Amino acid sequence: MSEPVKTLDGWYTLHDFRTVDWAAWKTLSSDERNEAIAEFQNFLNKLKQTEEAKQGSHALYTIVGQKADFLLMILRPTMEELNELETEFNKTKFAEFLIPSYSYVSVVELSNYLPADQDPYQNPEILARLYPILPKTKHICFYPMNKRRQGNDNWYMLPMEERSRMMRSHGMIGRQYAGKVKQIVTGSVGFDDWEWGVTLFADDVLQFKKLVYEMRFDEVSARYGEFGSFFVGNILTEEAIPKFLSI
Amino acid sequence: MSEPVKTLDGWYTLHDFRTVDWAAWKTLSSDERNEAIAEFQNFLNKLKQTEEAKQGSHALYTIVGQKADFLLMILRPTMEELNELETEFNKTKFAEFLIPSYSYVSVVELSNYLPADQDPYQNPEILARLYPILPKTKHICFYPMNKRRQGNDNWYMLPMEERSRMMRSHGMIGRQYAGKVKQIVTGSVGFDDWEWGVTLFADDVLQFKKLVYEMRFDEVSARYGEFGSFFVGNILTEEAIPKFLSI
Amino acid sequence: MSEPVKTLDGWYTLHDFRTVDWAAWKTLSSDERNEAIAEFQNFLNKLKQTEEAKQGSHALYTIVGQKADFLLMILRPTMEELNELETEFNKTKFAEFLIPSYSYVSVVELSNYLPADQDPYQNPEILARLYPILPKTKHICFYPMNKRRQGNDNWYMLPMEERSRMMRSHGMIGRQYAGKVKQIVTGSVGFDDWEWGVTLFADDVLQFKKLVYEMRFDEVSARYGEFGSFFVGNILTEEAIPKFLSI
Amino acid sequence: MSEPVKTLDGWYTLHDFRTVDWAAWKTLSSDERNEAIAEFQNFLNKLKQTEEAKQGSHALYTIVGQKADFLLMILRPTMEELNELETEFNKTKFAEFLIPSYSYVSVVELSNYLPADQDPYQNPEILARLYPILPKTKHICFYPMNKRRQGNDNWYMLPMEERSRMMRSHGMIGRQYAGKVKQIVTGSVGFDDWEWGVTLFADDVLQFKKLVYEMRFDEVSARYGEFGSFFVGNILTEEAIPKFLSI
Amino acid sequence: MSEPVKTLDGWYTLHDFRTVDWAAWKTLSSDERNEAIAEFQNFLNKLKQTEEAKQGSHALYTIVGQKADFLLMILRPTMEELNELETEFNKTKFAEFLIPSYSYVSVVELSNYLPADQDPYQNPEILARLYPILPKTKHICFYPMNKRRQGNDNWYMLPMEERSRMMRSHGMIGRQYAGKVKQIVTGSVGFDDWEWGVTLFADDVLQFKKLVYEMRFDEVSARYGEFGSFFVGNILTEEAIPKFLSI
Repeated sequence: MSEPVKTLDGWYTLHDFRTVDWAAWKTLSSDERNEAIAEFQNFLNKLKQTEEAKQGSHALYTIVGQKADFLLMILRPTMEELNELETEFNKTKFAEFLIPSYSYVSVVELSNYLPADQDPYQNPEILARLYPILPKTKHICFYPMNKRRQGNDNWYMLPMEERSRMMRSHGMIGRQYAGKVKQIVTGSVGFDDWEWGVTLFADDVLQFKKLVYEMRFDEVSARYGEFGSFFVGNILTEEAIPKFLSI
Repeated sequence: MSEPVKTLDGWYTLHDFRTVDWAAWKTLSSDERNEAIAEFQNFLNKLKQTEEAKQGSHALYTIVGQKADFLLMILRPTMEELNELETEFNKTKFAEFLIPSYSYVSVVELSNYLPADQDPYQNPEILARLYPILPKTKHICFYPMNKRRQGNDNWYMLPMEERSRMMRSHGMIGRQYAGKVKQIVTGSVGFDDWEWGVTLFADDVLQFKKLVYEMRFDEVSARYGEFGSFFVGNILTEEAIPKFLSI
Repeated sequence: MSEPVKTLDGWYTLHDFRTVDWAAWKTLSSDERNEAIAEFQNFLNKLKQTEEAKQGSHALYTIVGQKADFLLMILRPTMEELNELETEFNKTKFAEFLIPSYSYVSVVELSNYLPADQDPYQNPEILARLYPILPKTKHICFYPMNKRRQGNDNWYMLPMEERSRMMRSHGMIGRQYAGKVKQIVTGSVGFDDWEWGVTLFADDVLQFKKLVYEMRFDEVSARYGEFGSFFVGNILTEEAIPKFLSI
Repeated sequence: MSEPVKTLDGWYTLHDFRTVDWAAWKTLSSDERNEAIAEFQNFLNKLKQTEEAKQGSHALYTIVGQKADFLLMILRPTMEELNELETEFNKTKFAEFLIPSYSYVSVVELSNYLPADQDPYQNPEILARLYPILPKTKHICFYPMNKRRQGNDNWYMLPMEERSRMMRSHGMIGRQYAGKVKQIVTGSVGFDDWEWGVTLFADDVLQFKKLVYEMRFDEVSARYGEFGSFFVGNILTEEAIPKFLSI
Repeated sequence: MSEPVKTLDGWYTLHDFRTVDWAAWKTLSSDERNEAIAEFQNFLNKLKQTEEAKQGSHALYTIVGQKADFLLMILRPTMEELNELETEFNKTKFAEFLIPSYSYVSVVELSNYLPADQDPYQNPEILARLYPILPKTKHICFYPMNKRRQGNDNWYMLPMEERSRMMRSHGMIGRQYAGKVKQIVTGSVGFDDWEWGVTLFADDVLQFKKLVYEMRFDEVSARYGEFGSFFVGNILTEEAIPKFLSI
């Protein structure tokens, strides 16, 4: 058996993608719509208070194309909190006009392909990465992924050193995008259908393409990466919500 | 032909995942909703009586993410009983507001990769595992799986000794999680689309991830495991039902 | 080119799986429901008369899990009759409350992997198998399947003798279940998405699992078998219909 | 690079599969239904006139099983005409009660694996095959297919002579069914999701199965054939339409 | 690690495929329909003004077959603009009668498999290709694609020179279609589920088939190409819209 990598795990994460049923939304009176928007804003305010108390974080982005109209990404210390927020949101007036389009359940994860003589939990930078306050960049990108287990391309049959070597080289590419792209990896083995979710944040949306494409030539992705659906979007600020939902 | 493994089979099992149509649920009057909830609680009470009589068992968990809102898992001595309970539930008022999201039909199974000189049916521990009263842990995890039959990675072409050796090593990992994760394996060859269902119970939801991830580096999973959708959830106690369904 | 196997072909077969829309069904008045049930029973009586005249056969089983609520399996001498019965059923009141969930079009098939000096059409046992009156066992199991054509595991590139040898060994397993499981193989090359449908009948539902699992270790299944969805169910007798559909 | 085969291309083809929403259809008054049927018959008459003028052809068949209730197959000299007929049909009253179930866009194609010294366009038989008037056989069979490009089984990497040799042998099988099965191959590279559509016509539906099954043992299919869904049906003559749609 | 290719990136692109719900569209009064059409035409006029100002481009085509009724393809300098136009369109009256059928998010891309001594951004022809005004040809073809990463056919593990050599040979085929087919490649790594979208424009629809089929015999496609759904359509000019939508 190959030696498993140790992981560090932080906040539980729900990526919640929804599509607006615009035709139904329009059947509401202006007052009803405003009420629904206000209730949604209250919900977001509650999330904001939690974020300010550093008890969690969240992000709200519109999504380009038909896969979804927006993504609400929520991080919390427990799976129960995620579930409760999800149910609370489902019971709002606004949610009556939303069609679930995709969701992802995972937990912020750091893969410990680090030298053994470091105690990662002593590292404040690592702690900040396990319990991250999400950045407010202009763009977001999300995709789930697996490490391949197929014929001669079986990641999980490789010895630890080989995996470590490849992950370090992989990490080098990521580091070239420091300051341009912030990456949050969430682990979902046992929680959802892929092994990881990758959430990228950037002010220049083209950097997502450059980063993912460059990585694809790296052996880790080229031979061992399997990718699900990609979602890309633009930040939906508090102030922009009424316009987004206005008819 | 490879020698097939003998299996021991216990209670038949239905995993029944449902999504609540909250928008429709809200159209009910408060009285109608309470009536529907009461009828659902009666249904659960009947299940409870069966469990107390040790004629079956069941579990009720909310599910995180859009795949489902809850899972009702039911174990019974016969396939007919499962079918009758399913139909009875389908006819309740509450079910009018539920959308079927996934289900799984299987039977509690113990794979007899044991030394030949043991008669498993003399073993009270094994009997308790074939007819298990489900634990009331905080969390549940369910996923279906196959053993791969692909090119050089064909589980069913391996000699019995090799399979036994690998399954023992696999079991060793599981045993390290004793006390943390309880696992119930149900066989579904001939009953549903995958060969097995795996249901995990734990009070610490992170243990699901750790267990499944560690096992993935074991040859049995790395080379021979194929996995379906993963569902993860939180216990929905009797007392919490009214709040879960309140508007 | 490999020598194709000769097949013997009998009655055309439609497996028609349906899900009941219980919420809609409940909106009917008791009288309307009874009328719809009576019409359905008349339809079944007509099928029964055809069966008694040995001009066809049929079976009605409830299905466990969300894949379907019941299966109506119909055998007839011509494809036109299947189509007419399907359309007739679709026009009934009952069908207004049914959601099509899966169907399968095939023809009873015997693969002639027999010694060349036998004329199978002289064999009354074979004729009885081509035009079978379906048994009234407690349980049914249905699944479609292919023979694999992938890399080194390509059934259709094997020489006839090798296929014959493997099919004989495969048949040996089946014969051990004689008296426990009755198997009807229907061919669907050119008719539906898989190459065969397999319908199993048994009074002990566990025998389905034992048979299919044991066969999976046989080279024919292990290397060459590809399987679609599995459906398992319980007999729905004439007398039990009103209860099944009562609200 | 392998030498591509030259193709001859004839009429553009739309296979349009529809399912009748019988429950909705029944809500119409008898008069409304008759009006809708008459409008549909007018539409078909227009197609018939085009066919009589040899400016196109069409076929109407009911489909067995839940995949569709009928197939309207239309051939025309231009893609625009197909599109206009499709839109015209979509605007009819009858179409309000139809659910689109599958469609296929292609063009009648002859693969020129012929000796180089023949000019196919001088061949009246070939012209008749490029612009065919569809036969009125009792049965139809349709399926889309690809030539495989996978590992060692990559059709498009084979030298022209090898492909020609295999296609000739493949054609030999087809020729044994002359008089029993008429085959129309339509190319769909660049037009739809598979590379070809195959439409078979026969008075004996069993010949579809025999032909496709026999071909499957031929190397072209065994190693290089990938198949989509199969649809099988019975002719729906003009005269039979009122009965088919009567309630 | 293989050396990644450098890409040049131009306008962001949304392919937005929609299906008309004709039955619902017909429930509108003639006046309401005309109003909805006028609003749609206003929307298109706005797009036209942007195109005339060379700040973007767009194309409108009907699609043959059931996959969609039309495609609106929009190019803009930013992802935000695409998203805003999409949302604006979703809020129109017309959109209430449209069902989203497929969409694709990408960016105009030129792969820099060019000699290193050329600065592509000095090349006015290349700039014109990065910010293209879409041609008004009679036909359009769209499909998404990947470069394969499977066993021995792994594009991303090939050395740069080999990829360059193959892409040049691939480009030679394309050049033979100059004047017949205009091709716009858009990159979607990090933006959508495939790596590229290919949009072809031609006055002779058969050229799509000839081009894609010929390329399939080229090693780049034969061994390394993986293709999604193909959509083919006919231009829907401004003047033709009222007829297309008339009842």
